[in-house]
Amino acid sequence: MTSISPTLEAEARRIVAALETAWNEGNAAAFAGEFASDADFVNVRGDHASGREAIAQGHDHIWSTVYVGSSVRYAVTQVREIAPGVGLVHVDALLRVPSGPAAGDTGAIPSLVLVQRDGAWKIASFHNTHRRRE
Amino acid sequence: MTSISPTLEAEARRIVAALETAWNEGNAAAFAGEFASDADFVNVRGDHASGREAIAQGHDHIWSTVYVGSSVRYAVTQVREIAPGVGLVHVDALLRVPSGPAAGDTGAIPSLVLVQRDGAWKIASFHNTHRRRE
Repeated sequence: MTSISPTLEAEARRIVAALETAWNEGNAAAFAGEFASDADFVNVRGDHASGREAIAQGHDHIWSTVYVGSSVRYAVTQVREIAPGVGLVHVDALLRVPSGPAAGDTGAIPSLVLVQRDGAWKIASFHNTHRRRE
Repeated sequence: MTSISPTLEAEARRIVAALETAWNEGNAAAFAGEFASDADFVNVRGDHASGREAIAQGHDHIWSTVYVGSSVRYAVTQVREIAPGVGLVHVDALLRVPSGPAAGDTGAIPSLVLVQRDGAWKIASFHNTHRRRE
């Protein structure tokens, strides 16, 4: 579709900013709160989590282990309305891990599918892939 | 949503089977033909292609280089109707490469977002991630 709802564009940016803030504060409830209750999440390892609660627990786990002390920067690169009331969002992500086996900066490209639930925009699907360095 | 249209379930399986057949025959036009003209594709390297033509060219390229002679097996693991007329599909994928730097078997988990265009179901988004082996 060639046009996009100003509401969707704004909501996509709000949701991605909220995820970034939640990650950087280690706030799993806030992070998962942007997802629909039955959302699907595929992480950079190819693990598939189903549901808001599993998404919260998974992030609590990584923030206390492999990604402890980490921070992210997210930039929205594209928002499309692929069906009425359904947004497809692509993000340029940079993860900074201060120490441990994953220490360093890693790029990734998550895509999000946004839907409307009870009058609010929520993430129905989040799928993430590391960018490979040549 | 708790219910799913029988049409969506059947179309998801038809589309995934068509992608598998097209890959195994090295038929880029057939592969890309399952996508909407403005589809987005994120591959396992985190590269983002936009549009059916770029998707066809990208697959022609990998089938003549790093994935020459390769085959895939796809199994649909989940189909959800996340909004009216919009399907979210998760797939268990196995890629077999006979030789070269990528030789061997590699698991992946693509997700697809299906929409209706001119009365037909098409892929609006395809996002793929390798499964990590411990």
